[in-house]
Amino acid sequence: MTDMMNSTTSSLLRGVLSRDARSIAKCMSMAESATRDDDARALFSTIYGHAGSAHIIGLTGVPGSGKSTLVRALAQQFRASGRTVGIVAIDPSSPFSGGAILGDRVRMGELAGDDGVFIRSMATRGSLGGLTRGCMEAVDILDAAGFDVVLIETVGVGQDEVDIARSALSVVVVSAPGLGDDIQAIKAGVLEIADMHVVSKCDRDDANRTVADLKGMVGMGLSGRNRLGWNVPVVPTSAEKGIGITDLIITLDEHRVHLEQSGEGVIRAEEIARMRVTKAAEDIARERVAAARGQALVDAMQQVTKRTIDPHSAARILMQSVSDT
Amino acid sequence: MTDMMNSTTSSLLRGVLSRDARSIAKCMSMAESATRDDDARALFSTIYGHAGSAHIIGLTGVPGSGKSTLVRALAQQFRASGRTVGIVAIDPSSPFSGGAILGDRVRMGELAGDDGVFIRSMATRGSLGGLTRGCMEAVDILDAAGFDVVLIETVGVGQDEVDIARSALSVVVVSAPGLGDDIQAIKAGVLEIADMHVVSKCDRDDANRTVADLKGMVGMGLSGRNRLGWNVPVVPTSAEKGIGITDLIITLDEHRVHLEQSGEGVIRAEEIARMRVTKAAEDIARERVAAARGQALVDAMQQVTKRTIDPHSAARILMQSVSDT
Repeated sequence: MTDMMNSTTSSLLRGVLSRDARSIAKCMSMAESATRDDDARALFSTIYGHAGSAHIIGLTGVPGSGKSTLVRALAQQFRASGRTVGIVAIDPSSPFSGGAILGDRVRMGELAGDDGVFIRSMATRGSLGGLTRGCMEAVDILDAAGFDVVLIETVGVGQDEVDIARSALSVVVVSAPGLGDDIQAIKAGVLEIADMHVVSKCDRDDANRTVADLKGMVGMGLSGRNRLGWNVPVVPTSAEKGIGITDLIITLDEHRVHLEQSGEGVIRAEEIARMRVTKAAEDIARERVAAARGQALVDAMQQVTKRTIDPHSAARILMQSVSDT
Repeated sequence: MTDMMNSTTSSLLRGVLSRDARSIAKCMSMAESATRDDDARALFSTIYGHAGSAHIIGLTGVPGSGKSTLVRALAQQFRASGRTVGIVAIDPSSPFSGGAILGDRVRMGELAGDDGVFIRSMATRGSLGGLTRGCMEAVDILDAAGFDVVLIETVGVGQDEVDIARSALSVVVVSAPGLGDDIQAIKAGVLEIADMHVVSKCDRDDANRTVADLKGMVGMGLSGRNRLGWNVPVVPTSAEKGIGITDLIITLDEHRVHLEQSGEGVIRAEEIARMRVTKAAEDIARERVAAARGQALVDAMQQVTKRTIDPHSAARILMQSVSDT
């Protein structure tokens, strides 16, 4: 694939593979862009081929669950044990409001001077699609760059965010004690993909109740991927007090061993591959509609607006008109 | 299109167009299904052609914003003024947990005996895609059935939910006083598509602050579609105390007049048409990948799993292999 790239892209690739922070950052910006030219496509294709070694860990929880604080504590602990860490944080702020919860990122500052850590915050877009692809490519970049661990932080609401969490090898669902049922309910979609639960702020009085509730849900089969001998654990932590972070890392390491030894890792890799191919097909379709120009597009859209043709039929026509390009 | 349907589907269509509750319910179940056979496709195409008269109103807000209570109060007020109301509520519960916040729906019970009201709660799926299409088809059904007003209730987090809200003619963003910034931030994506804001629970002491904050955001251009002479209003309501519901209905009616008179309605309809065609193209792509069978699929997925080919290239190959079917 490398020979299909121009020299700028090739040198970018070499930079990424040698974990050069500037090259990684540049490549990340390309991943964030909604469109891909042929060079970018060839680059990401090659990067995908170099990825596959990192332990990809998805951490998800509603705002207020203490997820960002946990990610920071986890990154510090991984660094203390000599492992390099890449972080992709999905920021639900819109391009309009320009990073409402950027404060979380700023608090990561103390890790910033360490070249064994790379942190990237990606904004979720107001425009259609592309977030999932961009995020997964960002993870590929860090993976190909040789980071031992890649942490993906997502809010875990909405299909895209659930899919992003699902693309990790180990999925950690973070819950704080005392958050209302209303708030907890919005993360229902991620409960079933949890490989482990973390109860943050476990020094609080009501934390035991949350731990017991989650254990109950896991026990009843309402949450977690209890497959091939893996029993979804519930790990209490307090990032502020330094409680449970080592336990969580041990549990993550155990999960990785489980993935390798039980065959679950192969099943997981196939599921992720299928999801990524499906997402890529959606991207191609979206791009084809966007690429349809001229009278065919104008006619189709006018007919849909006037309701003389339905959106599905119009989409078929437009995709057909550009499928050979 | 009607002649392309079999007799069962044709009679279903007649039932929908005459606002028969049983036919509408049956049709809704078809909209909730992830797949469409040719009959279903023809049915939804015809229904789309019959839709376009209802005032589609999207109400969105985080859990705890008082959105469901507002929807109920609004529906009762519309009924009191003689207008029929269809409601599509997007429920973020997973198929696993089977309807965590169904309580909201149950509270709608008092409207249930009224045949001028149809309420449907749709679960967001754990599976890939299809929610947006299903929801928009559900709205088409109620629109074609002749309901004067169709209310769409969504949580407003995640791209799918934002897109669903965006498919309405009038978008209402609901905020409760006192919800933390953390929680409010997750709805950042919908702030910019607000045609009007509602502050619920306005009898609370801290409601004035929330009203002022929202007015400030609108004034600074940080929220709302202030276009073609429309100034995004902030309406304080208390569904429990019956305050502001009439004001909200007056504002909604004014917005509809604005859409018709300013040309905004035409722009809006074109934007919605483009979004629906794009979503339909994504659905087609997803279905093509799912439909790819035999050795081509097995080979492609194995190669992606082994990283000898990237997901985008695999998607292109698979889509090509079934594009003529």
